[in-house]
Parts: sequence; structure tokens; C-alpha cells
Amino acid sequence: MYILIELVGIFFFAVAGSLMAARRGFDLVGSAFLGGVCGLGGGVVRDLILNESPATFQHPIYFVPPALAALCVYAFTPAVKKLHRLIQLFDAAGLGLFCVTGTLKALEHHFNPVTAVLLGIITSVGGGLLRDVISNVTPDLFNPRDIYAMAAMVGSALTAVAWHAGLMNAAVGAGIAALAFIIRVASLRFGWSVPLAAGHWHRPNHSTPGSDGPQRHYF
Amino acid sequence: MYILIELVGIFFFAVAGSLMAARRGFDLVGSAFLGGVCGLGGGVVRDLILNESPATFQHPIYFVPPALAALCVYAFTPAVKKLHRLIQLFDAAGLGLFCVTGTLKALEHHFNPVTAVLLGIITSVGGGLLRDVISNVTPDLFNPRDIYAMAAMVGSALTAVAWHAGLMNAAVGAGIAALAFIIRVASLRFGWSVPLAAGHWHRPNHSTPGSDGPQRHYF
Amino acid sequence: MYILIELVGIFFFAVAGSLMAARRGFDLVGSAFLGGVCGLGGGVVRDLILNESPATFQHPIYFVPPALAALCVYAFTPAVKKLHRLIQLFDAAGLGLFCVTGTLKALEHHFNPVTAVLLGIITSVGGGLLRDVISNVTPDLFNPRDIYAMAAMVGSALTAVAWHAGLMNAAVGAGIAALAFIIRVASLRFGWSVPLAAGHWHRPNHSTPGSDGPQRHYF
Repeated sequence: MYILIELVGIFFFAVAGSLMAARRGFDLVGSAFLGGVCGLGGGVVRDLILNESPATFQHPIYFVPPALAALCVYAFTPAVKKLHRLIQLFDAAGLGLFCVTGTLKALEHHFNPVTAVLLGIITSVGGGLLRDVISNVTPDLFNPRDIYAMAAMVGSALTAVAWHAGLMNAAVGAGIAALAFIIRVASLRFGWSVPLAAGHWHRPNHSTPGSDGPQRHYF
Repeated sequence: MYILIELVGIFFFAVAGSLMAARRGFDLVGSAFLGGVCGLGGGVVRDLILNESPATFQHPIYFVPPALAALCVYAFTPAVKKLHRLIQLFDAAGLGLFCVTGTLKALEHHFNPVTAVLLGIITSVGGGLLRDVISNVTPDLFNPRDIYAMAAMVGSALTAVAWHAGLMNAAVGAGIAALAFIIRVASLRFGWSVPLAAGHWHRPNHSTPGSDGPQRHYF
Repeated sequence: MYILIELVGIFFFAVAGSLMAARRGFDLVGSAFLGGVCGLGGGVVRDLILNESPATFQHPIYFVPPALAALCVYAFTPAVKKLHRLIQLFDAAGLGLFCVTGTLKALEHHFNPVTAVLLGIITSVGGGLLRDVISNVTPDLFNPRDIYAMAAMVGSALTAVAWHAGLMNAAVGAGIAALAFIIRVASLRFGWSVPLAAGHWHRPNHSTPGSDGPQRHYF
């Protein structure tokens, strides 16, 4: 059951990774690789921090979702301009599932609640962060026009609370994952955002003060 | 005592990370995240190499400096054009402290002196490198117009010598950290540099031969 | 014997890293650092996944090839426009050696063949990927105009087959490494490629649909 949910989450993230490969003009092998990094990266980082051999490399089954995702993206590529929205949608689905499973795994390792929540956040944002970093684009995580890590934070915190209250079961977990997904997607739709890092600056239009690297065109 | 110094170093690096978030136009959550990566990243990489569960995730106290740093940067954002200088200043302070503590931790793990010095360098440059990489800018580490890793190398080497000579104490450690800090800041002020990787090329003016990626505007 | 082959592979990758430092206009210290990351990064990632302390940090000898590579590149820098070809050539040599040694190491750790092949691929593409990511260029791995990870895949798969058939020896290993090297270099020479991630798109000319980050000028 737990493994099945993990595999579904890996598939969502892997699709987001393969769509990024399509968006950047990479080839099919790069697509499978980027899908694998995006789908499995967060969990591998979490397991390294937990100081255990990553579960990913114990069971070859974990590599099926990325392979499947690359084939799906190859077969059903959407129009170019819809690509970024689709990436964000699949990414949000993975985010919702992984903030729950990541936090639960840390709690089962007897980490304190604060650390468990942080590990849940790292698990759920890690894959997408790695995807963006190795694709050489500014990570979606840092886009100031919507809510990303905060959605994972809400999901992870609720998971820790439910677990400590002894209320965690499949339905509650699914509800929390859905909530984190909805927060993320709603923030994209309605432009919810948090204040800028630099408090008293006005939110920039189409350019970012002090930036010197490549910016996304929709920034 | 040791923990206190670590926390101060983490705070310096975290401020550098949050200032980078301000410079790139990220939001407050991204600021805390980037501060955390910059402040804690070097130590996590070191602990992974030492094959132990990162100390960072054992004690929630380690997450206080990044949170504090994000709030400080939010409250007291400097003018845009001073941002990069400030990042370099706080980064240099963290560099000085971490090259000492990183090398000492490796020596206590009975690593040979060469490896201990290298781990000290990795600890002290790792956080800033991760900050720059995930912010999608060319790492400061590679700027050929000043001295960066070399300052950490001097600090780490002196730490290893002092430790093997049995002379290491709080005052000596503070002196070495101050020296590494001064070398880094002086190189920025006076334009000290090391030769280019490509020996016989002339140092480029405002452009870099063979470059194909984004360059910093002050490069 | 095994260590000697590793050192040769590390040297090839380190030269590729130092040449990248030359191409991007970094300094000599950055050159040694980037050579070290490129030469040692793949093996460190593999060892972290195998959950053992990276061999690299047990023996200072592993740091000799990157130092040597930085000096060689400093002394014999080629013309600017030949740099990228040279990087690819040395990278291909390292790729060939590492897909064999990486797979063998995983097999000796009793991993299943699928995982061993994947670890071989990660070992052989990891160093170059880290080099490109921290140099802030789009990884060569993703270039859709040639074959990269696929060459490593062939080498790793043949290694696993030969090992399970009890046929692995120095000559067979060298032959497989040479084959992977030749596939990679031939794909560069003759423009072999795999289909794009986005199946029904036409291969773009000089620009990539949906890309928003920096592109290589020869893309």
C-alpha cells in the first residue's frame, strides 16, 4: 500500500521531469534520466540524510515509473505553451503525496517533529529542485508569484500532528496530500503569494532587481 | 562552545543566502530555504562524506539561524547595488569559521591531514557553492578576480598544523578564522587573484573567452 | 590494478573539468576544484548510494590526478574554439572507464543487475553532470544531437553480462570501456542521436521550443 502510493508519487514527479526535458528540447534518454532524478531525487536525499542506503536502489521496481513517464511524454506531447502549466500540475501532485510519505518516514525513524516536518519538505521539494537545477533554469521553488514550499510545509505539519495524535490512516493521509496539492494549484490559479525576501521592495514587473542570471520569461 | 561557533557561522552563511534570495527577487519562504541551504549545506555534505547522519538534523536548534537570517534580511534590506558586496562579506565570515570547524571535525574522525584539509575546504565553500548553483548563477567560488577557495585552504592548512602541533585552542582557532576572513575580504578590496586556468590567455575584459553560459555583470 | 584504472579515469575526467574551467574563464584554483568535482564526483555519489564512506577520502592519492590535470591544462591550453571538443573527448574516455568500474563495484556489493547497471551509469555520467551544473551550463548529457548516457548504458550492461557469465577480466573490461568510448565519440563525429523527448516535434534548428534558459551556442 505504502509502496504503491510512493510509486504513484514518483510517476507524477517523473512526468514533470520528462515534460521539462521536452520543454528544453532534450532527447528521450535525457527525458528518462530527468524523470528519474525528479521522481527519485527527493527520496534519495531524504534517505542519505537518514543515513540509510536509498530504498530506490534496493528494488528495481522504483525505476519503472520514470521509464513509463518518458514513454508517455514521448507519445502524448502537448502543445509547447501548455508545457509549463502541465509540469507544475504533475509537480503539485507529487508534492502533495511526498510531503505526507516523507514526513511519515522520518517520524518512523524517531526524529523529533520539527526535523520530521523539515525532512518531509525536503523530500517533496527536492526532486523538483534537482530537476530545475540540472536543467539549468531558476527553480520553480523560488518563484515569488505563487506558493510552493509553504504548501509542502502545511502538508508535512498536518501529517506530524495527525501522527502524534494517533489519527493517521490512509484516508487522513490522502486528505492531507489533496490539501497540499490544492493549496499549490490554487496559488498558481489565483496568484497567492508570500512577501518578498527583501521586505520593503515593490514587487518587480517583468524584471528582478539585482538579478544577474537567466530569468524565466513568465517571471 | 563548539556548537555556539557553528551556529554563528551558520548565521553568517544564512544571511548570505537570504541576501541572494533578495537579490534574485525570491520570496520570504525561498529566502529561508536558501539561507538554510547556504548555512547548513556545507556541513551536511561534510557529514555525508564522513558517513554519519548529519548533525544538522539531530538538533532543531540548527534551523534557528536560517529563520532568523531570513527575518533580518526581510526587515533590513539594503540598497540593491550593495547586495552583492554584503553577500560576499557575510559569506567570508562564514568561510573563515567553517574552514576551522570543518577541518577540526575531520581530524577528530582520524582522517589523514590532507583529507582533513580538503574536508575543511569543502565544508567552508560547499554552502556558498550550493547557494549559487540552485540560484542559477555562476558560483562566486570561480570568480577569477579574487581569492576564495585559497583563503579556505590557508585556514584549513593552518588548523591542521596547529592541531597536530597540539597548539589548537579557542584563541588560535579564532585567529585562523580571522586570517582566512581577512585574506578573502582583502582579495575583494585589492583585487588579489590567482592565475587563470588557461595559462597563456590574457585576462579578459568584461567577457570571457569560450564562455557560453550566463555571466555576472561585474565579471 | 583496479586502483590504477580508476586513477586514469579520474585523470581523464579531471582534464575535462579543468578544460571547462579554462573555457569559462575561471582561475587555477577553480580549475583544480572543478577537475576534482568532475573526476571524483561520480564515484562519491556512487559510494554515498552504496552507503559507505567515499573511497576518495580514504586515500589522498585520489587527489593527485585533479591537481595534475589543472597543471597540464594551465601549461598546454589549446585554442579557444577547440576547447569544447577536447572536453568531450576526455569526458568520453572517463565515461568508458567509469561505466565498467562503477558497474563492477555495484555487482561486488551484491546489487541486482538492473541496479548495478544504473549505478554504473550514474558513476560514469555523474562527474560530468556535476561539472556542467556547477559551471552553470546546460549539461552535455542532455544534448539531443549526440549519444551520451546511452553509451554508458551499453558499457554498463555489457559489464553486467560479462560478470554474470564469469567472463570478466582485464582484457574484456578494457574492450567494453573502449566500445563505450567509441560509441560516444562516433556519435559526436557522425551526429548519431536518439529521438527527442517530445515525440512528434521536429528537431529544432538553432533554437529549442519551450526553452527559457541559457543554451549552448552550438546547440
